Amino acid sequence: MYYPEPIAKLIDSFTRLPGIGPKTAARLAFHVLRMEEDNVIDFAKALVSVKRNLFYCSICCNITDTDPCSICQDKSRNETVICVVQETKDLVALERMKEFNGYYHVLQGAISPMEGIGPDQIKIAELLRRLGDDTVKELILATNPNIEGEATAMYLSRLIKPFGIRVTRIAHGLPVGGDLEYADEVTLSKALEGRRELD
Amino acid sequence: MYYPEPIAKLIDSFTRLPGIGPKTAARLAFHVLRMEEDNVIDFAKALVSVKRNLFYCSICCNITDTDPCSICQDKSRNETVICVVQETKDLVALERMKEFNGYYHVLQGAISPMEGIGPDQIKIAELLRRLGDDTVKELILATNPNIEGEATAMYLSRLIKPFGIRVTRIAHGLPVGGDLEYADEVTLSKALEGRRELD
Repeated sequence: MYYPEPIAKLIDSFTRLPGIGPKTAARLAFHVLRMEEDNVIDFAKALVSVKRNLFYCSICCNITDTDPCSICQDKSRNETVICVVQETKDLVALERMKEFNGYYHVLQGAISPMEGIGPDQIKIAELLRRLGDDTVKELILATNPNIEGEATAMYLSRLIKPFGIRVTRIAHGLPVGGDLEYADEVTLSKALEGRRELD
Repeated sequence: MYYPEPIAKLIDSFTRLPGIGPKTAARLAFHVLRMEEDNVIDFAKALVSVKRNLFYCSICCNITDTDPCSICQDKSRNETVICVVQETKDLVALERMKEFNGYYHVLQGAISPMEGIGPDQIKIAELLRRLGDDTVKELILATNPNIEGEATAMYLSRLIKPFGIRVTRIAHGLPVGGDLEYADEVTLSKALEGRRELD
């Protein structure tokens, strides 16, 4: 037995998404069948629109629907600081904090020899272009605290320090609200290494 | 900070699906961004098609894109038996077994006073209409083994027995491959009650 073709196709499309197996896909497809038609059409339009109306910002390489993106357009920010992140999601996480007032650069990935991603596959050339005039004084490397992120940070640091720009790395340590007991050794050792005087 | 509008809209659409929270929705939306455009368009078309091209079979009330549905069109089946299920998913599960050769009737729900669903809200009238001539000899009630399913089975049984049609209920008992130790008391008691002679 088979599902009617429209349902089978939708189940197939859902299974292509990460973390969605055939049973969940079937459940979602039957849910769509019961949704209001307007909502389903909005969903379909949103899918296509994401593919068609988004591109990389010509300055910071963030994903955007306007060029330059809304952050690069914002003249009230501190133009002497650029925070380098791997993905748009990371930028959103930092923006949610509402404390950082500089600009961003989104690498759209990290150096990963295992996956065959070298410095040329991510947006490093675009970053260097932004450092051409002497506006930028500090580059904050906020790539992920894992092997690829660290390797990318190391690479960028060596590449950019000769420009005479201050290159910093976000701190590693215990997450706030975390439990010392459950911290892994590397985090603990980084937390010790990065200890600061109390004032 | 916000996501660019097309992404925000897609995240919003994904969050409307059952079991998908904002974090998963964001992950799925970014995945869509990286999918091939053709696949995304197929996905969008599948969504709309499910809403527009599916309807209830005029005979068995199954969801279908042809009328009558492919099962009701199949003249090789045994027309004296109808198996009553709650949902298309249940029908698919039974068909996967490849052993049942009769026709189906899909109630599209179960009687549930708690949710305000009475006999008129599910496809019972359509079922009675099929019992008008004397073709059908047996009605197998394969509604779910939970309160709503049992109530529906009980209701149908009382309603249809006076027609002189054999009304049966699928067996309750221990699932094959299950562990007696972990079975709940109701299932165990049903398994005992339904015990059969070994031959």
